Amino acid sequence: MRYIVGIDVGGTNVVVGVVAEDGSEAVGVVSEPTLPEQGPDAVVERIVKLARASMAKAKGREIAGVGIGSPGPLDTKSGVVLLTPNLGWTNMPLRDRIAQALDLPATLDNDANCAIFGEWWRGAARGVDHVVGLTIGTGIGGGIILGGKIYHGASDVAGELGHMTINANGRRCKCGNDGCLEAYASGPAIAARAVEGIEAGAETALPQYVRGDLSKLTAQVIYEAANDGDPYALEVVRETAVLLGAGVANIVNIFNPQVVVICGGVTLAGDKLFVPLVREVERRAFKPAVDVCRILPGSLPGTAGVYGAAAVFIQRTWGRV
Amino acid sequence: MRYIVGIDVGGTNVVVGVVAEDGSEAVGVVSEPTLPEQGPDAVVERIVKLARASMAKAKGREIAGVGIGSPGPLDTKSGVVLLTPNLGWTNMPLRDRIAQALDLPATLDNDANCAIFGEWWRGAARGVDHVVGLTIGTGIGGGIILGGKIYHGASDVAGELGHMTINANGRRCKCGNDGCLEAYASGPAIAARAVEGIEAGAETALPQYVRGDLSKLTAQVIYEAANDGDPYALEVVRETAVLLGAGVANIVNIFNPQVVVICGGVTLAGDKLFVPLVREVERRAFKPAVDVCRILPGSLPGTAGVYGAAAVFIQRTWGRV
Repeated sequence: MRYIVGIDVGGTNVVVGVVAEDGSEAVGVVSEPTLPEQGPDAVVERIVKLARASMAKAKGREIAGVGIGSPGPLDTKSGVVLLTPNLGWTNMPLRDRIAQALDLPATLDNDANCAIFGEWWRGAARGVDHVVGLTIGTGIGGGIILGGKIYHGASDVAGELGHMTINANGRRCKCGNDGCLEAYASGPAIAARAVEGIEAGAETALPQYVRGDLSKLTAQVIYEAANDGDPYALEVVRETAVLLGAGVANIVNIFNPQVVVICGGVTLAGDKLFVPLVREVERRAFKPAVDVCRILPGSLPGTAGVYGAAAVFIQRTWGRV
Repeated sequence: MRYIVGIDVGGTNVVVGVVAEDGSEAVGVVSEPTLPEQGPDAVVERIVKLARASMAKAKGREIAGVGIGSPGPLDTKSGVVLLTPNLGWTNMPLRDRIAQALDLPATLDNDANCAIFGEWWRGAARGVDHVVGLTIGTGIGGGIILGGKIYHGASDVAGELGHMTINANGRRCKCGNDGCLEAYASGPAIAARAVEGIEAGAETALPQYVRGDLSKLTAQVIYEAANDGDPYALEVVRETAVLLGAGVANIVNIFNPQVVVICGGVTLAGDKLFVPLVREVERRAFKPAVDVCRILPGSLPGTAGVYGAAAVFIQRTWGRV
């Protein structure tokens, strides 16, 4: 059995694990904050250090290579990250820098692609042909897996599902567009919508959860308050489900997939989010497409991207996964 | 050289032609109103009569089979049209009824899929790997061509691009959803938006184009008035471009295609529509995706569906096109 180092480079954390080529396990999983403000060299050093720590924990296993998932846009062929606003990188040859430092062959793909590919390979979307997924965190990423392969499009930038317009004249998104799904349903966007409601006079105990400092309000705090029964927090969660439902219904009508998998912290809201979300998708999308589609939370929280990055290496190097 | 009868069944017209297997020509093209109100048997008889007329015009050519494009949802494997609100059919075995009547093997696919496949095979989107298209008429259909094949999804209902939500709380669509692209930018939706504006007091000569009978207002009349310089008609066309631009930007961000092809009468507006449409897509979608994508009107007006239906037969029967 060979093993692959799977590296998931996020805007907030880097996660690394050593993944068996049959996907049966990820061992030596380690994680550290990315700290992109320290510059690209420091981040690369941190990634390499983490990879070495992970391999040390997985001692005795034969390591065949490295799969890397990174925010994009990036070029999978050259292994270069073209531009990442979150990390502040431009034309960064991430794949080759890591490959050289570790003296191992490496592959590079988009982080959200890797997470959804991981969920298809070993997680919630196992065993089906058509999977589309969202990774919801600071932003909203997307991954499209068709016939067991990541769909990349003409120039490796396909799958930007978070930047689907769901309100043509809606909230301004960081990407410059108006009304993106991400501008409503990412973690920070959920918090921003709640803050706006509070400032407009909504009755809620939410400020008490953050000692009156609304800048500390997060999606997670809103879920906590919703679990405690706060009516306004519940309304924000329901509204999130409706907006996310519009986006997922679009995915269902466009791709007719067997599974839509939703990854990331937002899924921690559980049934409070998923029940109204599924109801909204049923209301919006075509019945023959809804009937064959399951909408599922990811089942590999924290490691989907690690599994998926390793799976990309396996597929590109050995032709199957 | 073998020939294939290509049949394009629309809600308004049936078009039939005899297509060379290399796509070099479509001969004997004939068309008649569908008249769905006469019931399925009458429509099938009309299709068969048209096919015979087309073959008679193409006399002397070896006919190998029949490709049929029909509104859906439908099942490509069984050749059954499951349900078509426009035609009033339920579980209609269209493929086998036509095959038996003509004593020729036949295939069935979705009408919009066929039109975009035709544009990929012989039209505006020739020679590229990733093509996504819209057919804009009474409704808005979609077709997704990836790697030279129609993408069907898990149960043959993928590609419903007209039912992409672009305004989550927007105009009610015939499909039951709120804010579909079709509810803003189909032919009748364009006319309905104009009528609403006129009833709200917009200054325009549009009523004079229809002798005061606003129920006669069509997208085509609005283009005519726009060409004559009517400021309100121009505004409606520009607004259409903005809304359509939101939908096309979604396609660009999701599929990263080389070509988005737009078919149907709406394209008759020409530059007045396409110039602001392209500008809107550039404003909304990611630059690396926009940079590799051409947005083009279809180049086979009237026969894209005939070519595409024949191409489906060729690909399914002989394995290539």
